[in-house]
Amino acid sequence: MPVEVALARLLEMAEAAPIVEFEHLPLAAAEGRVLAEDLLSSLDLPPWPNSAMDGYAVRVADWTGEPLLVSQKIFAGMAPEPLAPGTCARIFTGAPVPAGADCVEMQENTEVLADQRVRFSEPLHVGQNIRPQGQETTVGERVLNAGTRLGPIELGLAASLGNAELRVVRKVRVAVLSTGDELVEPGQALGPGQIYNSNRVLLCSWLQRLGCEVLDAGILPDNLQATRERLAQLGSVDLILSTGGVSVGEADFLGIALREAGELALWKLAIKPGKPLTFGHFQGVPVIGLPGNPASTLVTFALLARPYLLRRQGVTEVTPLQFQVPAGFVWPKAGNRREYLRGRLEQGRAIVYRNQSSGVLRSAAWAEGLVEVLEERTLVEGDWVNFIPLSEVLG
Amino acid sequence: MPVEVALARLLEMAEAAPIVEFEHLPLAAAEGRVLAEDLLSSLDLPPWPNSAMDGYAVRVADWTGEPLLVSQKIFAGMAPEPLAPGTCARIFTGAPVPAGADCVEMQENTEVLADQRVRFSEPLHVGQNIRPQGQETTVGERVLNAGTRLGPIELGLAASLGNAELRVVRKVRVAVLSTGDELVEPGQALGPGQIYNSNRVLLCSWLQRLGCEVLDAGILPDNLQATRERLAQLGSVDLILSTGGVSVGEADFLGIALREAGELALWKLAIKPGKPLTFGHFQGVPVIGLPGNPASTLVTFALLARPYLLRRQGVTEVTPLQFQVPAGFVWPKAGNRREYLRGRLEQGRAIVYRNQSSGVLRSAAWAEGLVEVLEERTLVEGDWVNFIPLSEVLG
Repeated sequence: MPVEVALARLLEMAEAAPIVEFEHLPLAAAEGRVLAEDLLSSLDLPPWPNSAMDGYAVRVADWTGEPLLVSQKIFAGMAPEPLAPGTCARIFTGAPVPAGADCVEMQENTEVLADQRVRFSEPLHVGQNIRPQGQETTVGERVLNAGTRLGPIELGLAASLGNAELRVVRKVRVAVLSTGDELVEPGQALGPGQIYNSNRVLLCSWLQRLGCEVLDAGILPDNLQATRERLAQLGSVDLILSTGGVSVGEADFLGIALREAGELALWKLAIKPGKPLTFGHFQGVPVIGLPGNPASTLVTFALLARPYLLRRQGVTEVTPLQFQVPAGFVWPKAGNRREYLRGRLEQGRAIVYRNQSSGVLRSAAWAEGLVEVLEERTLVEGDWVNFIPLSEVLG
Repeated sequence: MPVEVALARLLEMAEAAPIVEFEHLPLAAAEGRVLAEDLLSSLDLPPWPNSAMDGYAVRVADWTGEPLLVSQKIFAGMAPEPLAPGTCARIFTGAPVPAGADCVEMQENTEVLADQRVRFSEPLHVGQNIRPQGQETTVGERVLNAGTRLGPIELGLAASLGNAELRVVRKVRVAVLSTGDELVEPGQALGPGQIYNSNRVLLCSWLQRLGCEVLDAGILPDNLQATRERLAQLGSVDLILSTGGVSVGEADFLGIALREAGELALWKLAIKPGKPLTFGHFQGVPVIGLPGNPASTLVTFALLARPYLLRRQGVTEVTPLQFQVPAGFVWPKAGNRREYLRGRLEQGRAIVYRNQSSGVLRSAAWAEGLVEVLEERTLVEGDWVNFIPLSEVLG
């Protein structure tokens, strides 16, 4: 199954099960959350014409070329008097332009005479250095769409419009399950045949960055009854996210439990790393099963589970930015799966980690992005490849 | 002052005042923090040769072309017996390869006969489908450098090596101060001449994403004595980050207070938006003063304050990824300051927001990145420009 087909199906399923509970949060608590409704501006921005410079406000028609008296001084935050005819006003950046003035001259083009009058050395133009009322936003305008993820910039924008709270989608609750008798938690001693569980920490911290509420459901033993019981305890979550298990052939107790009490689809994705992906549900709770090799977990989470989780919250833009960059490596042998190599930029070219084994995260920790090599494709240096910055998928 | 000169000076000052307090944190609490010491591997990864496939482990020299009996079944997590001569072992992905076996054949190339023996249909090769011990990492190897920021991937890598805790740099403590009598907090009524404070929320949530401990020091009144008192309360922080004030000319009480009890440098940066930047200290506490227009605050924080704060924590890589993309807009008039336009990618080309006024964050909320236009440069469509994804600077 091509990755775009798998993604389209997952997004369709996400849209069929949107999170429809909302909460009002103060801005300081809304970071990383998803806006539940369009944000309309309740004021004009700027609320009044204001000065873009430190300088002098004048009425161009009043200026004959002679120096002008300063009739008032207007700091930001002040409500100015109307400009007295035939005078100018000292004004600072961000301060309201007084009624009657139609121009601000920057102080660099002026000279204050001994008698305190101000001489203007350059021609003056109506509107100059004035930011008109409503230049940025007018009352009633939509400034953010429902489904926008709220980062520092969006929160700052909401604040500038006077909003102290926003209506956001409640967090998606995700249970993280690792499967495999071989797994041991870090800090414990490793027995024969055992390895440390790295996906748990990878996924829990990643999900938190994505604004999810994470339920750490531990390691699932390779035992059917225990699998059934553990899954049954997870009835309150929006998604069960498991890693491993599904590729273990005969020992796939998760698969058996899902077939008994739900549904299971096993997709053979045409991507590398990452081939097997499970989608199903257990007693109505959706389940995504990612492959257990850490690099495979990383790639399938980034490309498939992340957009699914964002779409469940109503996020419209779930595709990471990607860039065309010249390859700084050769790819002599075409594959029949799309590869996502862990790569970096070096002098504007994509280079890739020497060992692209899917076993550990070392290549990913070295990497700055995923380099996409399409199916049936060979590359010589300088050929264009798609580069997805990790920063685009990690948050 | 060119932006790269300002950045070099700030980084130098950051290196002269590194945070040298450390703490041990469990992995789950270390997200976003900076590694205080090199992480050396305490084990080989994989710890033993393991199978990359579901299939059968054999010793190539034992195979004559005849089907082989299955002498054991090895799941991941098991400690296998040595392979009985003249037999094969059923093996699953990730399971240890038994002593004596030197090849794994994937199950797709095998046939289980009626008598349970396994026929191999393809030639077998020594080493095939076996991940050798230590392929990814060997004991003592450095896998992460001191100064690495710990995201989900780095934490997963540390977990795979058995580390339950890491030694990290303590959080940088940053006080956020907004200056200006015109500022009102969102949720309150706006009086004449007043605007809502958006930089506070912008910077507080941004600093938290960067792993800082944020002290919200509120709005500084335009009054010298109050300014002195507020600054004196901030003696325990590593940085005072203020916005506004410095461009307000005569009303610059922050500047006056710094000159009295510390030092102040006012840099006229050759960037737009963002011209004035203050660097100084108050009673030994470093102060960075960003311009108060939200888009200027954004650009100067992203390009200057962010790398400064990361370097204070010992982060080596502080430069965001940037990409060369063709311009999808024209830039007919060269400027004498470097411009950072709020832009997006559209069919691989950079387009920019129609209104690049520095007044509000609307352009930034629309944007996916900053488009850099160099000094004295004009552009026609298709010319290459530098594109910095916002995701690279927001986290």
